[in-house]
Amino acid sequence: MTLEPTLAAIRPADEAAMAAARELQARLTKPAGSLGALEELSVRLAGLAGVCPPPLPEPAAIAVFAGDHGVHAQGVTPWPQEVTAQMVANFVGGGAVINAFARQVGASLMVVDVGVAVPLHGGDTLLDANVRRGTRDLSVEAALTEDEARAALEAGIAVANALLDNGAKCLLTGDMGIANTTPAAALIAAFAGADSATVTGRGTGIDDDTYARKIDVITRALALHQPDPARPLATLAAVGGLEHAALAGFILGAAARRVPVIVDGVIAASAALAAAAFAPDAVAAMVAGHRSAEPGATVALAHLGLTPLLDLGMRLGEGSGAALALPLVAGAARVLREVSTFDAAGVSEK
Amino acid sequence: MTLEPTLAAIRPADEAAMAAARELQARLTKPAGSLGALEELSVRLAGLAGVCPPPLPEPAAIAVFAGDHGVHAQGVTPWPQEVTAQMVANFVGGGAVINAFARQVGASLMVVDVGVAVPLHGGDTLLDANVRRGTRDLSVEAALTEDEARAALEAGIAVANALLDNGAKCLLTGDMGIANTTPAAALIAAFAGADSATVTGRGTGIDDDTYARKIDVITRALALHQPDPARPLATLAAVGGLEHAALAGFILGAAARRVPVIVDGVIAASAALAAAAFAPDAVAAMVAGHRSAEPGATVALAHLGLTPLLDLGMRLGEGSGAALALPLVAGAARVLREVSTFDAAGVSEK
Repeated sequence: MTLEPTLAAIRPADEAAMAAARELQARLTKPAGSLGALEELSVRLAGLAGVCPPPLPEPAAIAVFAGDHGVHAQGVTPWPQEVTAQMVANFVGGGAVINAFARQVGASLMVVDVGVAVPLHGGDTLLDANVRRGTRDLSVEAALTEDEARAALEAGIAVANALLDNGAKCLLTGDMGIANTTPAAALIAAFAGADSATVTGRGTGIDDDTYARKIDVITRALALHQPDPARPLATLAAVGGLEHAALAGFILGAAARRVPVIVDGVIAASAALAAAAFAPDAVAAMVAGHRSAEPGATVALAHLGLTPLLDLGMRLGEGSGAALALPLVAGAARVLREVSTFDAAGVSEK
Repeated sequence: MTLEPTLAAIRPADEAAMAAARELQARLTKPAGSLGALEELSVRLAGLAGVCPPPLPEPAAIAVFAGDHGVHAQGVTPWPQEVTAQMVANFVGGGAVINAFARQVGASLMVVDVGVAVPLHGGDTLLDANVRRGTRDLSVEAALTEDEARAALEAGIAVANALLDNGAKCLLTGDMGIANTTPAAALIAAFAGADSATVTGRGTGIDDDTYARKIDVITRALALHQPDPARPLATLAAVGGLEHAALAGFILGAAARRVPVIVDGVIAASAALAAAAFAPDAVAAMVAGHRSAEPGATVALAHLGLTPLLDLGMRLGEGSGAALALPLVAGAARVLREVSTFDAAGVSEK
C-alpha cells in the first residue's frame, strides 16, 4: 500500500470505547486504580480498537528492519559496518537476543533487509526489500532522496499489512544497523526541537572522543540540512536511515489497521516521531515498550506523550525492549476481557 | 519439612557460577552491558543455581496465601473482612486479576488457606492449611503465638517443596487478606528499623482519617510488642499475619532448593525481610518482581538490596506484580542459555 491511503485511514482513538473501558475497570474485582499504568494502557487499547474489551494483542509479530549508514565513515561507532549483515545472519540463525526474547514471549520474528550494504542470503524469515545498499553520509549530503525514503516507508507499510493479513494482532518494532543511533538522534533533534547534545547517547558503547565526534557530526548535519519537522518525508531523507523510514511506515501501517505497535528503543522512537509528524493520530496505536538508556529515546517519548512500560537500562535495539513489554500489553488487555466484576463474582465492595 | 532443616540447607550464591555468567555475558553477540538490569539478574540466577547457564525458570508456580486479621477491628480498611473469603472463591473460579496474569505468563496458580476467618470450600486449586481462623488484633495482643507462626511458616515451606517436587522451576509469591498491609507495615518497620509513618501506605485506597488511624495502630503495636528483628519468629508472631509467615516459609523453601522466588508487593516484601532475618543467604533466591506503590515495599527492598524489575504503580497484591515479571526473569536466563557468542556466530567485535 502506498503512503497516502495509509495516512488517510488513520483515525483518532474512539472516546466511547475508552469511556467504556474506564467504567469497566471500576467494576472489576480489584481496588480502583490498583493496576497503575496498566489500567490506562487498557483504556488506550480499547480506544485504538474502538471496542471494549479490546482484543488480545496476540499473536504478535516482530519485524527487524536492517540498514547501513554512510555516516559510518565519520567514525561515530567502533563497530565495523559488516556487523549489520553478520547480525542479520545471526537473527536468521536464531542466535541473537531478539530470537531468545521472541521465543520467550511467543512472538514471531521476521528480518527485513531494507538497506543493508551487501547482498544477503537468508531463509524464510529474511525478506529482501532493499531500497539501496546503505544511505549516503548525512553529514555531507542528504542520506536519501525523497523517493528512496518513500520506498522505505512503503516497504514498512507493506510488511505491517502482510503480518496483519497473516493474523498478527500486535506489531513490535525491531532494528539493526551499525551507526543507526546517529540518524536516530538527528531525527529526534529535528522532530522534537531538541539540540544534538541532549539527544545523543553512547549507543552500543563509545568512548569520550567518539561521543564528542558523534555530537559534532549530528550538529553539522542539522546545520547543513535545516530539516523542517513539518515535512517528515524530507526530514527522513535528509538525516534519517532506511530502517528508520521503514519503521515509520510500519508504525503507520499498524495505526491504519487500528492494531497496537510496541515501540522499542531509540531507533523506533525516532521513527515514531516521524510517523506522528505524518499523522498525529498514529500516536494512539503506539505503546512505548521501554525506556532505552539512550537519552534521545526519553526526549522522543516525552514529545509523543508516551510513558514507557519497562525501565531496565537496556540499550540493545533489535526489538528487545518491545518483546519484553508484550506480556504487559497482553496482560492489560486480558484484565478487561477476563476479570470478573464485583457483581458477577459476588465480592463485596468497600 | 520443618523450619530448622530448611534454614540449614540455605547457602550463599556460588561465586564461580556468577563469574562464569559475567564472562559469558561479555562474549554474547550484543554490546557489553546492553541488557542493563537483566545482565546482573542473569548472573544472580547462575549464582543461585550454582551453574552457568542457569536453568530456565519455567514452569513457574504461583501460590496465593490467604489469611484474615484481627486488626481489621481497628478500622484500618474500608473493605469488609468477608472479602478475603470472597476473593479466594474468585481465585478458585478463575476470575481475579492474578488468574488472568497467570494465564498470560503460563504459570500455574494455587490458593492456600493459611488463616481465613471462615471455612472455605474449593476445588483442586485450593489447599486447606488453615492454622487459625484469622490472627488476633496485633494492636492489643500478639497476633499469633510462636507455635502458630511456626505452623504457618512450615505450611509455606511445605507448599514450596510440593510445587518444586511437582516440577516447578520458579516460585511466585501471592497473597490475599483484607487488612494485611497493616501487619506488613509493622513487620517492615520492625525488620528494617523504619518508623511507622514511613512504611505505611494507603493499601487498597483509604481516606485521610483511615490512613492516620492505620499509622496510629501500627505505632501502638510496635510500642506494645517492641519486636526484636533478631528474633524473626517472635516478630512474626507479635505483629505479623498468617499469610506473611507462610510467605516467609515459602521463600525460605525456594532458597533451600536453590530455585528463584519472585517477590510480589508489600506483603511479600515484608515476608522476605522475615526470611532474610532467619537466613541472610536466602536473599540470593529473591527476585523483586515490581515496585509496589506502597511505600513500605520500597523500604523493604532497599533493606534487602533488591532492585525491582517493574515499576508500574501497581498495588493489587495477589502475586500480580510477580507474575508480570516472570517473562523478564525467564528472558534473563534464556540469554545465557540461547544467545550465540561472537565466535560461534562469526560476528566481528568492535
